[in-house]
Amino acid sequence: MSLRAAIRTIPDFPKKGILFRDITTLLGDARAFRKAVDELVQPWAGTKIDKVAGIEARGFILGGAVAHQLSAGFVPIRKKGKLPHETVSMSYTLEYGTDEIEMHVDAVAQGERVILVDDLIATGGTAEGAVRLLQKMGAEIVAACFVIDLPDLGGASKIEALGVPVRTLVAFDGH
Amino acid sequence: MSLRAAIRTIPDFPKKGILFRDITTLLGDARAFRKAVDELVQPWAGTKIDKVAGIEARGFILGGAVAHQLSAGFVPIRKKGKLPHETVSMSYTLEYGTDEIEMHVDAVAQGERVILVDDLIATGGTAEGAVRLLQKMGAEIVAACFVIDLPDLGGASKIEALGVPVRTLVAFDGH
Repeated sequence: MSLRAAIRTIPDFPKKGILFRDITTLLGDARAFRKAVDELVQPWAGTKIDKVAGIEARGFILGGAVAHQLSAGFVPIRKKGKLPHETVSMSYTLEYGTDEIEMHVDAVAQGERVILVDDLIATGGTAEGAVRLLQKMGAEIVAACFVIDLPDLGGASKIEALGVPVRTLVAFDGH
Repeated sequence: MSLRAAIRTIPDFPKKGILFRDITTLLGDARAFRKAVDELVQPWAGTKIDKVAGIEARGFILGGAVAHQLSAGFVPIRKKGKLPHETVSMSYTLEYGTDEIEMHVDAVAQGERVILVDDLIATGGTAEGAVRLLQKMGAEIVAACFVIDLPDLGGASKIEALGVPVRTLVAFDGH
């Protein structure tokens, strides 16, 4: 059971020249999905984790499963305007321009131990925004976990520079 | 531990006169989240479920956890244009106009036993689209599960009329 083999590569999505790493084939394979969840959080199994924060939208799938695995609560980090209650927001840099993500103001309490989850880390812009948002609210970010790493794009290093351990399971060269 | 008490009500979201039932407070409460996942699938615990299909975006959180609980694969049902591989789509009726949802063509195989998950059923438009999409691909829909039901809006009856058992955990009167 190879997680790498369970990930499908789609050329020229969302635009020409991009090799899109499609995690839906892994999620759809019950054994691969379970293995990915197990391996993502294996270093923190048995430790106290208060919340798992997932980044919209694919990070919700893995994050929901990881929260269930760790018996933790789940915190959605969403695009601007999607959350119904009072939010805190953080802007982050995209390839061209900036965007903004939000979290409910009461989603994490000061000192809570949080694991951040998304499916993939590329340049790390969104993940950096999510880390800064959680840190702003006083969370202790135990780790940021991603199934797929594109190390050439430097995202994991960017997150580690913020003092957050990064765990990834499968690395692909190139973009 | 009351699931109802863990759901927050926000007046006038997304527009004036709507009482929005906010499930994020339930998801963030580790015990309530686990209880909701347990109760959602309790009738099918121990039976063979091949896939859990979740509807974007909040259905991804609960669906990911339910898939993990049942050791099933996960299938994302998304808004148009989000999935990278070849898709099948289904249009459905909104209060005003129509919208479309999609699934990968190879996400479920003929005869696979599938549970559909979302956080809430209101008029049931999106859920009906998802059921028709799964049926079109030959899935056997074992059940459609929602934490919150707004029975005055008739969504659950609409899904049952398609031959799919519906399970909901908490009902709120009014819209």
